[in-house]
Amino acid sequence: MNADGVTREMGHRISGHRDRFKVLFEDYFRSLRRTADVPTLSRFVPEALDRVEELALRGGKRQRVAFVYEAMNLAPSTGSQVAVDTAALSIELLQAHLLIHDDIIDDAPTRRGGPSTYYAYRAALPERPQHALGLALLAGDLALALSLQVIADAPLPASLAQSMTQCQVTAAASTFRGQIFDLERDFLGVPDTNVLHAVCDFKAARSSALAPIQLGLLAAGQDPCEHDASLRRYAWAFGVSGQMRDDYLSLFGDEKVTGKPATADVRDGRITYLIRTVLLAASASEREVLESVLGRTDASEADVDAVRQIIRDHRADRTLLADMGCHAEIASREAATWSGWGEAEAVAFFRDVPVWGIERLL
Amino acid sequence: MNADGVTREMGHRISGHRDRFKVLFEDYFRSLRRTADVPTLSRFVPEALDRVEELALRGGKRQRVAFVYEAMNLAPSTGSQVAVDTAALSIELLQAHLLIHDDIIDDAPTRRGGPSTYYAYRAALPERPQHALGLALLAGDLALALSLQVIADAPLPASLAQSMTQCQVTAAASTFRGQIFDLERDFLGVPDTNVLHAVCDFKAARSSALAPIQLGLLAAGQDPCEHDASLRRYAWAFGVSGQMRDDYLSLFGDEKVTGKPATADVRDGRITYLIRTVLLAASASEREVLESVLGRTDASEADVDAVRQIIRDHRADRTLLADMGCHAEIASREAATWSGWGEAEAVAFFRDVPVWGIERLL
Repeated sequence: MNADGVTREMGHRISGHRDRFKVLFEDYFRSLRRTADVPTLSRFVPEALDRVEELALRGGKRQRVAFVYEAMNLAPSTGSQVAVDTAALSIELLQAHLLIHDDIIDDAPTRRGGPSTYYAYRAALPERPQHALGLALLAGDLALALSLQVIADAPLPASLAQSMTQCQVTAAASTFRGQIFDLERDFLGVPDTNVLHAVCDFKAARSSALAPIQLGLLAAGQDPCEHDASLRRYAWAFGVSGQMRDDYLSLFGDEKVTGKPATADVRDGRITYLIRTVLLAASASEREVLESVLGRTDASEADVDAVRQIIRDHRADRTLLADMGCHAEIASREAATWSGWGEAEAVAFFRDVPVWGIERLL
Repeated sequence: MNADGVTREMGHRISGHRDRFKVLFEDYFRSLRRTADVPTLSRFVPEALDRVEELALRGGKRQRVAFVYEAMNLAPSTGSQVAVDTAALSIELLQAHLLIHDDIIDDAPTRRGGPSTYYAYRAALPERPQHALGLALLAGDLALALSLQVIADAPLPASLAQSMTQCQVTAAASTFRGQIFDLERDFLGVPDTNVLHAVCDFKAARSSALAPIQLGLLAAGQDPCEHDASLRRYAWAFGVSGQMRDDYLSLFGDEKVTGKPATADVRDGRITYLIRTVLLAASASEREVLESVLGRTDASEADVDAVRQIIRDHRADRTLLADMGCHAEIASREAATWSGWGEAEAVAFFRDVPVWGIERLL
């Protein structure tokens, strides 16, 4: 198949998983509404569930969901449909939790092209910012509980439920450590690449790539530990490549695609892979410009343009894109080794998706 | 045994469980430090674990822990020591999570006689309040993950681990709903007693009384569902009685015992059982005084004294104490019915502890 054929085929597979999952996810929330234990006199509790649902269904490309289903297809057996559906629901509910809390941590107004849960509460309760904070925090906590409850309540063999819970709890704990490390980064000046890699691994790769693959294999009756080292290498390289893409898009991407204003990273002052590269390459006077803009919450579009120009002058954007391609290639090669034990079509998916994921958006 | 004998015996049993658990909890954190997956370059991640540990070990009377162990003793079998220890660890880690997030929600400076985790971070990072918020939130998230990981990683039969996880996740989800309802209360004027009861049930009774008893029974190889309705009635009445005690102590108690300033409830403006009673009994002019003080973050000791005086004038404190005793009695009678299936000594514990819990502090 030529490159265009791969792109079409990949897009088709991912949107197939996404569309199937959409029906499943809507059903889940409908059934939650019927069965959830809600204080009868409360209006805020059903509203919190509404907000979790609204953010969760706002969706995105559902890469994690595709990973769960394709990982199940790696195994020769057919696997259990209930198990794989449960895994996908759990993954996306955990993701909703992570996004809700992340937007509190970053004080971020927008997410997935709409208001963040935190800012939705602030808009609803303009005179009560402390209550808005508390309600957003609790909506996030609730999503985390739901992501584990969906496994605990599913009609699964106890040993499978136990393994899936262990997988998700470990992913969640890793992510929290990664988020803490991410905040620490702001105290480290220009951090070493190893720090950025570790943040990305803990914060994103484990919950977004490793856990979905592990859960898909578990649903297929496989033991993901047998391939642990390789799965981790894959998840890491895929995650780093994806983070580099996001760093690029946050400055050079289309807001309509990213769902976030292109000034967000600059205003946060976060040292991304891209900002790190340009800070190290910049002259003293350029560095002064960069440092005067980074972290300024009122940075204008012109300020951000100045940052973009310095990045382009040093070809730091090109360096980043090359590095991103290199990590996608590492992931791709790692997946190719799975042909020793995995079904060909699913192996091809994991081999092609890292490159597809970056080419599609650039 | 006379009343003094009961008090001594009860105190002895509870402190026995507490002291045993202290060793277990310290061991847990030591072993976590050896095994936890921490990014090697991070200083903030081990520090977050330190803060969770410090708050968790700061302890208290460990009523929940006593409930877990005594509930295991309800069953004729000896039960599994690993299972009951795991349950106790999980319960107290969940509690640490709840306290950390609660103190963010309430913007509370103190907890268990020391700084809240949120304020400890704010003190450590005075120039970075947004980072302090994020780190406290994540330390809380991490504690929640640990409370479930300790079950997932324990050497337990899968079906037991699965039931224990289900129990804890359900308790957590109930508590989050109760906390949301608790915040909603501030928008409801003077709420109905049913609202206060439901808040207390969802927010406190389920995670502090029901779940520990369920987990203790599970550790003993029993199915807590067989006694579900009775356990829920017990937990509810015990929880309401305890909440009324806390409402009383927050205005009339010794700060050294409660670990919180006696002005906290007044400054929060929260309508507690006590405040509700006095608001309904107050004359128009008294109500004016009460409303001018409640919710004022700068309420002085004299303001709070004025509230205390109005409460005393209407004997609202006496009404509350009578109501508290009544709910303790309901719990006590419910536990007495367990003698049909539970071991006598443990039944006596649950029968006596509601009254002991309120008499000890008043």
